[in-house]
Amino acid sequence: MNNPTGPFDPEQKAGLYNAIFNRRDVRGQFLPDAIPNEVLSRVLYAAHHAPSVGFMQPWDFLVIQSLTVKQQIHDEFVKANVHAETLFEGEKRALYPALKLQGILEAPINLCITCDRSRGGPVILGKTSIPSMDLYSSVCAVQNFWLAARAEGLGVGWVSIIDEQAMKNILGLPEHVVPIAYLCVGYVSEFFAEPELQSKGWAARLPLAELVSFDQYGQTKTPEQSDLIQQIAIDSQVYPHSLP
Amino acid sequence: MNNPTGPFDPEQKAGLYNAIFNRRDVRGQFLPDAIPNEVLSRVLYAAHHAPSVGFMQPWDFLVIQSLTVKQQIHDEFVKANVHAETLFEGEKRALYPALKLQGILEAPINLCITCDRSRGGPVILGKTSIPSMDLYSSVCAVQNFWLAARAEGLGVGWVSIIDEQAMKNILGLPEHVVPIAYLCVGYVSEFFAEPELQSKGWAARLPLAELVSFDQYGQTKTPEQSDLIQQIAIDSQVYPHSLP
Repeated sequence: MNNPTGPFDPEQKAGLYNAIFNRRDVRGQFLPDAIPNEVLSRVLYAAHHAPSVGFMQPWDFLVIQSLTVKQQIHDEFVKANVHAETLFEGEKRALYPALKLQGILEAPINLCITCDRSRGGPVILGKTSIPSMDLYSSVCAVQNFWLAARAEGLGVGWVSIIDEQAMKNILGLPEHVVPIAYLCVGYVSEFFAEPELQSKGWAARLPLAELVSFDQYGQTKTPEQSDLIQQIAIDSQVYPHSLP
Repeated sequence: MNNPTGPFDPEQKAGLYNAIFNRRDVRGQFLPDAIPNEVLSRVLYAAHHAPSVGFMQPWDFLVIQSLTVKQQIHDEFVKANVHAETLFEGEKRALYPALKLQGILEAPINLCITCDRSRGGPVILGKTSIPSMDLYSSVCAVQNFWLAARAEGLGVGWVSIIDEQAMKNILGLPEHVVPIAYLCVGYVSEFFAEPELQSKGWAARLPLAELVSFDQYGQTKTPEQSDLIQQIAIDSQVYPHSLP
């Protein structure tokens, strides 16, 4: 039997938008509480039901609980982060060291979501023109995982300041497997109301209306020229303060 | 004020899982019905609230309604697809031409979600070690858009069988802007119960338990060795037939 075609009922719709608008990249609020297997299984199934090019399902889920492995990853983060700091100038150089950028050791579970580029054989439907489609599929799994985790009350933080080859060596990834996301996962003491980089003044939310163009890249419209842009301008006063 | 830390209430949680498990890649079921601006604005805001490395928000949203542009994209799809067909052998070669792989001309709106690699300047927090992080951010926006669309009753299909440079030329994308996803968007006559490539026998859903390893890549466990794997095996009888 196929699925209903109409919109979800309001409470179900609110659940999805709640996850989308209140998802945060968590770095400093992890609690040590264990994650029940029922919950972890559900969020992994959510990830596994991401879209994938040619139904290739190129992802693997590496669950890391070993303190030794976490410590090795943490050491590599520190190394990369010391270097990263030197790349910024001015205000950002001053602010950077005050930012907590990972919760590797505090989070009860770390999870690496990977992309096996050899899965399904050498020719994959939908990947014959754009070779990076399999990487994108694994990213969709990351986002599904992140949203499902939020609905379960779990925080997730994505650690990207780390040398990719060093991470592959620590985790034993073969050459053809790309680590897409190294995630810290756990219950949290709080979910911030805004992204941390926004509230700390690192960067501002861009106005959506300026990111929308029509038929040709950069062909933007004013609210007077486009009912959609007018609606987006109205909604900028609404989201994310109130959910749809 | 910060957000509550507990899990969502059951109906809200069901809304998120409903979107995740019943999202489909739609190719052949688009209706010509116009999409209200209120709805399109909401799903664009959902995309805009994806995670992004260093709060870079590298995405742009190119809304395509021009039949001329759609036709040019369609022509390029046909060209790439004729070539793609020749790459398969045996059963897949026989099945391939019977698959409808895009709804470019039928969908009332096409949407290209891009990644502006120059946004935010040359040094981006979190992107100093892994340069592809900005591309991954735009993919997260695609997945948010797709899930929000599903909750609104909108179908989405990702067209990936097309030469990337040809697409850039048609859409007027500058060199530093990568087209991440070309999406067909519209209301639908039905949402299939399963992915089409699954029901048509192109590929099977992989057992999740085989994709989960522990502390080192490929270090899998049996249900007897791991309570999590045991739970995943139990849940394989439940999802996605019943939602959490």
